Amino acid sequence: MDVGFIGLGRMGRAMARRLVEAGHRVRVWNRTPEAARSLEGAEPVARAAEAFSGDAAFTMLADDAALRAVIGQGGLLEGTARPAVHVGLSTISVALAKELTETHARAKIAYVSAPVFGRPDAAAAGALHIVAAGADEAIARVQPLLDAMGTKTWRFGAEPEKANAVKLAGNFMLVSAIEAMGEASAFAEGHGIPGKDVLAMLTSTLFASPVYTNYGAIISEGRFDPPSFTLRLGMKDVRLVLEAGEAASVPMPFASVLRDNLLDAIAHGDADRDFAALTRVATRRSGR
Amino acid sequence: MDVGFIGLGRMGRAMARRLVEAGHRVRVWNRTPEAARSLEGAEPVARAAEAFSGDAAFTMLADDAALRAVIGQGGLLEGTARPAVHVGLSTISVALAKELTETHARAKIAYVSAPVFGRPDAAAAGALHIVAAGADEAIARVQPLLDAMGTKTWRFGAEPEKANAVKLAGNFMLVSAIEAMGEASAFAEGHGIPGKDVLAMLTSTLFASPVYTNYGAIISEGRFDPPSFTLRLGMKDVRLVLEAGEAASVPMPFASVLRDNLLDAIAHGDADRDFAALTRVATRRSGR
Amino acid sequence: MDVGFIGLGRMGRAMARRLVEAGHRVRVWNRTPEAARSLEGAEPVARAAEAFSGDAAFTMLADDAALRAVIGQGGLLEGTARPAVHVGLSTISVALAKELTETHARAKIAYVSAPVFGRPDAAAAGALHIVAAGADEAIARVQPLLDAMGTKTWRFGAEPEKANAVKLAGNFMLVSAIEAMGEASAFAEGHGIPGKDVLAMLTSTLFASPVYTNYGAIISEGRFDPPSFTLRLGMKDVRLVLEAGEAASVPMPFASVLRDNLLDAIAHGDADRDFAALTRVATRRSGR
Amino acid sequence: MDVGFIGLGRMGRAMARRLVEAGHRVRVWNRTPEAARSLEGAEPVARAAEAFSGDAAFTMLADDAALRAVIGQGGLLEGTARPAVHVGLSTISVALAKELTETHARAKIAYVSAPVFGRPDAAAAGALHIVAAGADEAIARVQPLLDAMGTKTWRFGAEPEKANAVKLAGNFMLVSAIEAMGEASAFAEGHGIPGKDVLAMLTSTLFASPVYTNYGAIISEGRFDPPSFTLRLGMKDVRLVLEAGEAASVPMPFASVLRDNLLDAIAHGDADRDFAALTRVATRRSGR
Repeated sequence: MDVGFIGLGRMGRAMARRLVEAGHRVRVWNRTPEAARSLEGAEPVARAAEAFSGDAAFTMLADDAALRAVIGQGGLLEGTARPAVHVGLSTISVALAKELTETHARAKIAYVSAPVFGRPDAAAAGALHIVAAGADEAIARVQPLLDAMGTKTWRFGAEPEKANAVKLAGNFMLVSAIEAMGEASAFAEGHGIPGKDVLAMLTSTLFASPVYTNYGAIISEGRFDPPSFTLRLGMKDVRLVLEAGEAASVPMPFASVLRDNLLDAIAHGDADRDFAALTRVATRRSGR
Repeated sequence: MDVGFIGLGRMGRAMARRLVEAGHRVRVWNRTPEAARSLEGAEPVARAAEAFSGDAAFTMLADDAALRAVIGQGGLLEGTARPAVHVGLSTISVALAKELTETHARAKIAYVSAPVFGRPDAAAAGALHIVAAGADEAIARVQPLLDAMGTKTWRFGAEPEKANAVKLAGNFMLVSAIEAMGEASAFAEGHGIPGKDVLAMLTSTLFASPVYTNYGAIISEGRFDPPSFTLRLGMKDVRLVLEAGEAASVPMPFASVLRDNLLDAIAHGDADRDFAALTRVATRRSGR
Repeated sequence: MDVGFIGLGRMGRAMARRLVEAGHRVRVWNRTPEAARSLEGAEPVARAAEAFSGDAAFTMLADDAALRAVIGQGGLLEGTARPAVHVGLSTISVALAKELTETHARAKIAYVSAPVFGRPDAAAAGALHIVAAGADEAIARVQPLLDAMGTKTWRFGAEPEKANAVKLAGNFMLVSAIEAMGEASAFAEGHGIPGKDVLAMLTSTLFASPVYTNYGAIISEGRFDPPSFTLRLGMKDVRLVLEAGEAASVPMPFASVLRDNLLDAIAHGDADRDFAALTRVATRRSGR
Repeated sequence: MDVGFIGLGRMGRAMARRLVEAGHRVRVWNRTPEAARSLEGAEPVARAAEAFSGDAAFTMLADDAALRAVIGQGGLLEGTARPAVHVGLSTISVALAKELTETHARAKIAYVSAPVFGRPDAAAAGALHIVAAGADEAIARVQPLLDAMGTKTWRFGAEPEKANAVKLAGNFMLVSAIEAMGEASAFAEGHGIPGKDVLAMLTSTLFASPVYTNYGAIISEGRFDPPSFTLRLGMKDVRLVLEAGEAASVPMPFASVLRDNLLDAIAHGDADRDFAALTRVATRRSGR
């Protein structure tokens, strides 16, 4: 198929490569053009609008602001060579997903929200978990492309923003797991027990799952630099959770604790470290 | 070996049976004697002191008060036929474990704390994870017995109370996972997405581990009666976490949220349901 | 002096009347024109721009969105008959205050932020406490006008947004006081003591101050309808506090609790009642 | 009247002196006897039991443990010269107050709980607010004595523990006010505004009351040493609030935040400073 891919950060780059490797024609665009030029097998284009065309166009950008900027400044929705389907892979707000649903409908472009779970290594291996929502026929059309990128596509109905809500729910559970490990670890250390011993035990038994095993190791080894995913981005996700929770009148006291602790971490200079550095807050607050 | 077992609740009964099946002579005592009489292959005794003797004696009781009552009223530590090793399997406070360490030392009985992770079905299958701390030689002595009950014994040093601290850390992570699933589920429902669909996805991928899979299903199906472990006991565990955290000056904001939400659940009549009914709080607070 | 006043809600109306009574010429504009027409002694105008002129123009609107709408749609900053000083009385975000400072500087209009503390009865009596920040000369120019509306003007420097931050800090303390009274009251009731007796005692002694006495009575009497200030607006204020706190990396756990409890109240249908109905959350959560 | 007074700390000493000055015969006892000997006009006694006699005996001790120790080790309830009324002035747990009610009933001594609000200077001036509960005739009997110590006695019924619950509710509101000032101050500082300026404004207007004015000044000046009331004792009070709240199934999220922040303060070495040092937590967490 003939596709465009906009946004070649660590995740986007790995995902676009999967499409190339699967034999598709892939036009790529990135804000800083080097990233586009260096992706072997792909076709770099000069303007985002040139990638926003073909059978499907993917966007994988850092946040609402970045996506708005590309779509707005690029005049994507007013372009002439519009894609049949726009697949939004970014972790964006539920509110923006709703807005995009409306603006795409007016522009007569099918819009599918398909945020993904997985870190860059999973993206490189085509082992992401993809959460998709949108019109059935649109998703069916891009399914072969999603299959090149992920192990499985989980469908959540016809309204695109629901996929974004699911993604946020998952990220919330992820950050909660990290905070719980941080507090458990500080608690153990407070009783003279190495936190890493406790995490090693729990994450290899009751909690033996990708999230706990992976982050348990990162926390135990204090492997916060370079970051796989920055704490600043973690803060963004928690903010999106709180905003979407507020829109639906859902109190989320765990999310509130996460927010306060992430701010504490940022105030102490950890914004650009791996977001598992959140666990340093519990340690510091216990006087260690 | 010749062992005693005190406390035949759902967990204790399954564990004592494992010892019987492994060929040990097992004297059993329970506050309500029917439970002791009905355990095939074991030898019911009339007084707790009679079970507190032999190569090793195990205690598996509901809480600090129950354990204190049995030890104190039973005059166990002053008995003549004292056991070589007392293995405390109960989830008790760090403070009581310290106290027992001292009183047993004075009574010249080796004391090992060995609380366990696992629900009754894991106990019946001998598939518990046992967390043990105490003198090396004492643990070595009872290791064959522990092997009959658990998949693995995790050692945490020579001070018994450390095993209790690890157990509390694990239970804290467990209740935190349940709360996180509850909030995520309420969040999803608030956006028109069935909470169970979100939990099914997340607990079979990123969070695929015994705790999440098991409790995710219980929550999704609302399977809170009869309880495997009551919410009231969950509250007890969180209280022990908070108390031990306070003793070590460790702030634990997640544990504080858990406490408040468990009280909310108790105030709404859920004390004797499965402690996963904690998730009803998030649902109720969101007006559903 | 010749002044304009935009926004004649309960507060604005009382404040504009004070200016009329002090002998100033007051042009008034409101989104729904009846409010403007019925203010005796004032001169209703047809477009907001006509009130945005003269020696000073005041704006007293519900939130960021309302203020942006009036300024933007009204083309106020591009008008020809611009006022010497624009005094923003509304409780708006710190971010918007910063933005207005810049846009006014470009438009060569002095901008002063001057949010107020006090309820409609205090506004009617000219007994508000006004928090002002902006250029000294601009404040000096409007001081006689502020004196007509308030008991005292508290100065917080030359950057307008600081006045907004102070206003938010005060509102945060106010909502915190209400929550504390709510929890204390639920606690008392839980012990068989009428909450109102406890509040009567505490608010007439240690806590004898306008905020506690006033809200203590509202809470004790359950006087939530009609609202003096809606819970929905209280939620807006707490959101502004959290956003401004986030911008400055200040964790605010009390504000987080307030947010969750206000959402709980909204989810239970209390959005349009007096914001002291927040205290119903503590009562409800305790099962009463 | 002929009275005994047990416990001559800063508060007790000032209160006992008020009784002496009012012309009563006052036998005094303190754990460290110097305090008893140096109280002019009072009659020091060698054993607590000697002070637990006469028309009324007062106890003013630091906590549950201290009161239990004096009553138990002193064999007070088994003495021969028992007082007509025992007035418990200490801030103790609701649970202990209930227990004392029962043990005193068996010992045929009237028991009145009468904890007080006020700092040592108010005690010295006889300006305390006294919260009393117990049998009407017992309170009537000691009313002249209470009048010598306080401005007013607030009655809360016949069950002594209710007075203790009211005292805890008041202390909870007090610590909440301090936390709110701390967060507001950190918020202001985060926006470049001196926290003390904001507190000066708010505590002299909306919040002008003894608690806010007094503690606002202590916080603004960082006057934490020597302490009037230590943070460690503040932690004790919050623990009693949480325990009593748990007994009545009342979630108290503000109290939970206070607990975590007080632990943070203790972990950072502030246990023996004035409990207003709690506000240092908000400052520290914001990276200042």
